[in-house]
Amino acid sequence: MKAVLSKSDFLDAITRAAGALPQRSSSIQALQNILLDFRAGDGAIRSTATDLEVAVIVDSPATIQEEGAIAVPGAKLLESVREMPDGEITLIGAERNTLTLKSGKARLLLRGTSREEYPALPAVTGDKSFEMDAALLRECVRRTVIAASHDQARSFLTGAHLSIADRRGRFVATDGHRLAISEFQPAAGKGSAKGGVNVIIPARILQIVSNHVAGGLVTVTVGETHVVFTTDGGTYYSRLIAEKFPDYEKIIPKASDRKVVLSRKTLSDSLRRVSLFTNQRTAAVNFSIKSDKLVISAETPEFGEATDEIEANVTGSALEISFNARYLQDVLKVLQGDELSIELGAKIAPAVLKTQEDKGYLYILMPLRG
Amino acid sequence: MKAVLSKSDFLDAITRAAGALPQRSSSIQALQNILLDFRAGDGAIRSTATDLEVAVIVDSPATIQEEGAIAVPGAKLLESVREMPDGEITLIGAERNTLTLKSGKARLLLRGTSREEYPALPAVTGDKSFEMDAALLRECVRRTVIAASHDQARSFLTGAHLSIADRRGRFVATDGHRLAISEFQPAAGKGSAKGGVNVIIPARILQIVSNHVAGGLVTVTVGETHVVFTTDGGTYYSRLIAEKFPDYEKIIPKASDRKVVLSRKTLSDSLRRVSLFTNQRTAAVNFSIKSDKLVISAETPEFGEATDEIEANVTGSALEISFNARYLQDVLKVLQGDELSIELGAKIAPAVLKTQEDKGYLYILMPLRG
Repeated sequence: MKAVLSKSDFLDAITRAAGALPQRSSSIQALQNILLDFRAGDGAIRSTATDLEVAVIVDSPATIQEEGAIAVPGAKLLESVREMPDGEITLIGAERNTLTLKSGKARLLLRGTSREEYPALPAVTGDKSFEMDAALLRECVRRTVIAASHDQARSFLTGAHLSIADRRGRFVATDGHRLAISEFQPAAGKGSAKGGVNVIIPARILQIVSNHVAGGLVTVTVGETHVVFTTDGGTYYSRLIAEKFPDYEKIIPKASDRKVVLSRKTLSDSLRRVSLFTNQRTAAVNFSIKSDKLVISAETPEFGEATDEIEANVTGSALEISFNARYLQDVLKVLQGDELSIELGAKIAPAVLKTQEDKGYLYILMPLRG
Repeated sequence: MKAVLSKSDFLDAITRAAGALPQRSSSIQALQNILLDFRAGDGAIRSTATDLEVAVIVDSPATIQEEGAIAVPGAKLLESVREMPDGEITLIGAERNTLTLKSGKARLLLRGTSREEYPALPAVTGDKSFEMDAALLRECVRRTVIAASHDQARSFLTGAHLSIADRRGRFVATDGHRLAISEFQPAAGKGSAKGGVNVIIPARILQIVSNHVAGGLVTVTVGETHVVFTTDGGTYYSRLIAEKFPDYEKIIPKASDRKVVLSRKTLSDSLRRVSLFTNQRTAAVNFSIKSDKLVISAETPEFGEATDEIEANVTGSALEISFNARYLQDVLKVLQGDELSIELGAKIAPAVLKTQEDKGYLYILMPLRG
C-alpha cells in the first residue's frame, strides 16, 4: 500500500481516532493499534480505533497509489506523525507488516500487524435515527454528563439516558446525588425515531463526540445494542448500556415558593474560596439564606474556617441548608447565563438550579444532611 | 498583629517563599508553614519558608497597624490568597494563633502556630562575597544545572561547583555522563572574594534563585557552611554541599580536528523524531558523520526504526558514534545560538558542544559504547 497525504489532516484524523483507544494499557494488545485502511475509491485513508466498547472512524483525504490496510501501534503512530516535518507525508506499507512514514529526509518505520488481526466492528442495525444540530448536541452533553456516576458497579448510572417522543428529546444523567436534564428538539427533516427512543448511552462516547463536533448536523442512529453518531468529521460507535434507567420523574420538585437569584460568577468565585476550608470527604458548604443575601461558610478543625456573603434577590423565607461544593461548581462551570436561580423547598428537599440562557436545562441537587 | 497589603504583592511574595517548602509532605509539620513577620520598621510583611536545606525570605510592602508574627500552613495560605478578591487584603492575627484574611465580605481564618515553633535560620558568617548580573546568573545556572546528577547517593554531583579566582568565575556540573561549564565575570565594584571561592552549591537553590531573579544585581555571599543570594526580590539561603568536587579539568578534551557545524534547531527537531525509536533505557541515537551531512538513526525491535539526515559543515574524517538522545536534547534546549559546533575525537572520546552566541559555555558529552 502507498499513499500521500497532508500531515495536518492525518494528525487530526488519528488524534480523533485515538480517543477510542483503550484507556488502560493492560488491555488486549491488538486494541492498542489504529487500523489504517488505504481506500482508493474514497480517496482517503480511513483510521479506526476501538476498545470494543466505543469505536471512532475518521477519513483523511489522501492520494492513494496502492490500496491496502495495516494496524500500527496508536500511541507511537501519533507521536511519529506529530514529529514529522510539516507538509506532505508519504506512507508506504511493506513486507512483514511494516509502515514507513517519509517526509524530506526523515524516514520512520513502524512495526504493525495485518488487518486480519484487528477486531471487526459490529454491524449496527439502526431502524431509528434522527438528526441534531452539532452545537446543540455539544451543549446538551456538556451540561448533562457532569451528573453521571463514575462508579462502574452501578453501570446504569455511568451514561446519559436519551429519550425521544413526539419530536422532543431529552438527555438525563444522575449519580444519585444530583440529576441533570437537557431537553432539545431534533432537527426537522429526515430521520425517523418512530415508536420513540429509550436508551442509556455511555458518557465516554458522548464526551468523545462532543469534543470532536464543530458545526453542522449529527446523525444519531440507535440500534438494538449500539448507537452510531455520524458527523462530517467521522463516525462514532458505542455499545448501549443495556440496563434500566431509574424513574427520575418523581424526584423533579414541583414549583417552590422559595427562590434565590444571584450571579453565577460571584457564587463560583466565592465557593472556590470557601471550599478551601471544607471537609475533604463531604465538601460541605453551608448556605444561610437571608432576606437579601446568601451567606456561605465552611469549617475544618484542621485548617480553619471561611465565610462570604453574596447579594441575592430572595423570595420566600430564610433557610439554612448545606450542599456539596464540588457538585455545585460542576454545574456553575457548564452554565452560560450569569443570572442563576436556585429554587429551594424544605431543608431536606432537592434544590433546582437553572438560568434563563440555558434553555431546557435543569440541575437538581440533593442537600447534605446537616 | 494587623496589616493591610495588596493581594498581588502578597501572592507574589508567598509564591516565591513557597519554593523553599519541603518537597515531601512527610517532612516535619512545622516546616510546611510559612512564617509571616509583620515588621513596622520595614513597612513590610516578611514571608519565610525553609526545608532546613534552603530558605527563601521575601518582603512585601504593607501598612503595619500592629506588629507580630505567626506561622501558617504554606500551601493553604497560598490557595487562600490566590482565591481572595483582587485588591487589598487585611490580615489580622488573633488568639490561639489564628490569622484572618479579609477582603470585601470574604473572611478566611487559618489556624497557625507561634513564631517560637518555627525553626531559626542559621547566621551566615560571610567573609567572601561578590556581585553578579542577575540575567548572567540565570543563564549560567540554566546551562549548567542540566548536567548535575539527581542521584542522592552521590550528593557531591547534585550541585554546581562554583569557583572564583582572579575575578574569573566558573559554574561546573557533571553527573559522570556529561559536564557543563559556564564561565562568567563577577560585576566590577564592591564585594571581595579574596583567596578565591571553591564550593558546591545545591542545584535546587540555584534553580529557585534563577527562576526568581529578573534584572539588576545579585549579591552572592559564601560562608563556611552556607551561601546567601541577595536580590531586590528576596534573600535565598542554602547549605553548601561539604564534599569534594571531582577533578574535571583533565577530561576537557584538547582541540580536535574533527568538527561538525549544523543548525541546533534542525538537530533538535530531528532528534525528537528519531528518539521515538530509541531503546528506552539507553536512549541511544547513532550519528553517522559523512563529508557533508550527519545521518542520525535509531532502532527498537519492538516499535521500529528511524533515520534522518541533516546538512552539516564537516571538517575531518567520517565517524560512527552514538549518544544518549536525552543528554543531547538537554543542552540543545538551553543554548541560544543556532549554529552549533560539535567537536569530536575518537569513537570513544567525549564530544564538545558549543555555539558562538553562548559565550563562555562548554558541554562535554561522553559517547555511548557501541
